[in-house]
Amino acid sequence: MNDKAIILFAHGARDPEWAAPFGVIQKQLQAARPDAMVEVAFLEFMAPSLETAVAQSAARGARRIVLVPLFMAQGGHLKRDLPLLVEKMREQHPQIEMRIMPAIGDVPEILQAITDWVLRGTGA
Amino acid sequence: MNDKAIILFAHGARDPEWAAPFGVIQKQLQAARPDAMVEVAFLEFMAPSLETAVAQSAARGARRIVLVPLFMAQGGHLKRDLPLLVEKMREQHPQIEMRIMPAIGDVPEILQAITDWVLRGTGA
Repeated sequence: MNDKAIILFAHGARDPEWAAPFGVIQKQLQAARPDAMVEVAFLEFMAPSLETAVAQSAARGARRIVLVPLFMAQGGHLKRDLPLLVEKMREQHPQIEMRIMPAIGDVPEILQAITDWVLRGTGA
Repeated sequence: MNDKAIILFAHGARDPEWAAPFGVIQKQLQAARPDAMVEVAFLEFMAPSLETAVAQSAARGARRIVLVPLFMAQGGHLKRDLPLLVEKMREQHPQIEMRIMPAIGDVPEILQAITDWVLRGTGA
């Protein structure tokens, strides 16, 4: 186990089934990066919160954390809520280097994968 | 223009920038399917609503509509809100064949695309 953690940050929902896809991504990442800590955290409705996940990763020795916001697009949650959380967590864990990846809707290859899937599913 | 419409159905948000990725997917689909109507519709905060988009597609001659829920995962919005909307729209437009694709979190190749992107972005 090295000092690197990847935390997938999702919105959360009341329905427990909602978390399933994030668990799939977590397992795929963990299999590809057996030495990193790979966690899922939620903004609301589900546990752990992002603060808890970061604190747990820190307690387990993480010094570099990459936050991956698994949100469709940039809106209030990523522009307003997440920066406030990150500011707070940087105060709580000054020893940790924290990096935030873009929203998945800002990633051309993911948008293309969605487009390709719709094209396959709507074939003439 | 044939009788087929593809309607991308997204959550919506107060921030206008939030809609941008769905516009990118719409343009990519429209370029690949110049004969189909490709629209974006929203559950809340943004226009048009799904009902409005379906009514407009129907008025323009759509007889087969594929609804593509661009939601990260299956929760209350797709399990409860969308079926109620679809039932209502089927009563309003009995001549239209309406098909619903899964949530993007249920599509293995999209989850894999997300995993691959995180791996590239967190390279050792």
